[in-house]
Amino acid sequence: MSLLVTGTVAIDSVKTPFGQRETCLGGSATYFSVAASHFTPVCLVGAIGEDFPEDYLKIFTGRPIDTTGLERRSGSLTFRWKGSYAGAMNEAKTLETRLNIVAEAPPVIPEKFRDAGFVFLANTAPAVQLTLLQQVKNPTLSVADTMNFWIQNTRDDLLELIEYIDALVLNDAEARMFTGADNLVAAARQIVQMGLKFVVVKKGEHGVLLMTEENQAFVLPAFPTDAVKDPTGAGDSFAGGMMGCLAAQNSLDLPTLKKALAYGTCVASLVIEDFSLDRWQIAGRPDIEQRYRQLKDMMQF
Amino acid sequence: MSLLVTGTVAIDSVKTPFGQRETCLGGSATYFSVAASHFTPVCLVGAIGEDFPEDYLKIFTGRPIDTTGLERRSGSLTFRWKGSYAGAMNEAKTLETRLNIVAEAPPVIPEKFRDAGFVFLANTAPAVQLTLLQQVKNPTLSVADTMNFWIQNTRDDLLELIEYIDALVLNDAEARMFTGADNLVAAARQIVQMGLKFVVVKKGEHGVLLMTEENQAFVLPAFPTDAVKDPTGAGDSFAGGMMGCLAAQNSLDLPTLKKALAYGTCVASLVIEDFSLDRWQIAGRPDIEQRYRQLKDMMQF
Repeated sequence: MSLLVTGTVAIDSVKTPFGQRETCLGGSATYFSVAASHFTPVCLVGAIGEDFPEDYLKIFTGRPIDTTGLERRSGSLTFRWKGSYAGAMNEAKTLETRLNIVAEAPPVIPEKFRDAGFVFLANTAPAVQLTLLQQVKNPTLSVADTMNFWIQNTRDDLLELIEYIDALVLNDAEARMFTGADNLVAAARQIVQMGLKFVVVKKGEHGVLLMTEENQAFVLPAFPTDAVKDPTGAGDSFAGGMMGCLAAQNSLDLPTLKKALAYGTCVASLVIEDFSLDRWQIAGRPDIEQRYRQLKDMMQF
Repeated sequence: MSLLVTGTVAIDSVKTPFGQRETCLGGSATYFSVAASHFTPVCLVGAIGEDFPEDYLKIFTGRPIDTTGLERRSGSLTFRWKGSYAGAMNEAKTLETRLNIVAEAPPVIPEKFRDAGFVFLANTAPAVQLTLLQQVKNPTLSVADTMNFWIQNTRDDLLELIEYIDALVLNDAEARMFTGADNLVAAARQIVQMGLKFVVVKKGEHGVLLMTEENQAFVLPAFPTDAVKDPTGAGDSFAGGMMGCLAAQNSLDLPTLKKALAYGTCVASLVIEDFSLDRWQIAGRPDIEQRYRQLKDMMQF
């Protein structure tokens, strides 16, 4: 089934204990698309400004990523994010955010993308996510990512969005903030009960927690690696691997969801081994499959 | 093979968001022994004072726990710990510690316990742990638990202890503190390279990480439950389940280690569902086995 993603294609500046990059390719839709494209064709919807370097677009070339929905607007500037990571690098410290094009009208979903079966709404204002979702006819699965800012400032919009989507992806601190529950299993359960098929709670170096509407919990640790250089894009790459796998399998049963979470985990563990999306210059599906087998073996006892 | 534990049998006062207990049974050797006794007979070594309530000892009755090594000293007072948990209850806040008997001479290991095959040295001063270990003839596996206080204040003693033991158990913050490594996999690897067969890093609600001398990593999430009432003793119960399983299997190969970690995880997930050791009034091996099968199924994808 076809997979659609809406999100940012951005210019990042990142500093970690392992080095820094002044202006490099970033953005939720970028990380998501490349990750998902290892599994299935992807339709990308986003907007970039006239400052966006042409050669950054090469990342999409030669991959099954349809960039028809990537609007380049003259007179606009690209979304820029500057951040740093320290210590265990579990959380980014945002040094600067220039919304630029993200503060303008959202991109429009091209007509030919509107029958997408699987939709991922990367993190942005819930009201914008809803506007985007409503342009898609009748998806099999729609999943949204969100963050603390929307939970705190646009809670009603988020609750409305949840009425329309099938699943939500958020991190552990956000799940606790959203529900007021300290126990993560309880928090995930509460979120599912808002009317979702499932929720995925991302715990960074500690892995992910899945809770389904049937009250089935599944926990998966992160792939154990000490080769982490830059965690930027880990969450969107995870989501890309997960959604790519689900779309490729065209199934939402528990075994497939578990498989999708494991693939997402492996994809995320690869991308963070280098800055920006550099890891994908070398790594491909065989590397993902190798890591998947390792994780599967590791989890058996 | 016989399993020996040295540690505290204590009187705790605990407050959590789910209630509180003024004076109840606690102590590392208590939690460890009861957990391990579901798998194998346990030899307990510890010391209690004249204030220790006789009926607290009933916990050991009817279980394969030999309390010959539990000294009751008249004129001494029992070790007391008072703590509270808030929020996600990942960390105890110690409100009061009365060392009492722990500040006196350590207990002596009875002659008949000295050929124990498996030894667990629950958390105390590394120099004391070494003194205790040296009374055991030639154990197959000796494992010590430690904590931040010893890492910071008696680092040399801890390094010396590591020359004599086979494995170390500690939590994630302690592993980072001990090595200076922010990445947990790297930290675990560094500790193993100090001369251990394996190290187990406990991550509370996020599970455990095993690193072996062959550089094999194994990660296991905690059993997902929202029924946590009192996390006291989770770590010692985990260790009890792990060591109990290893002693019962009398093996240290990787498949057995993984199995032991999974059993430890299940045992710990049970004990925290009630205050003190109350959960064991009802729960037994069948409950552990049921949870083990659930965890095993959950981990398969």
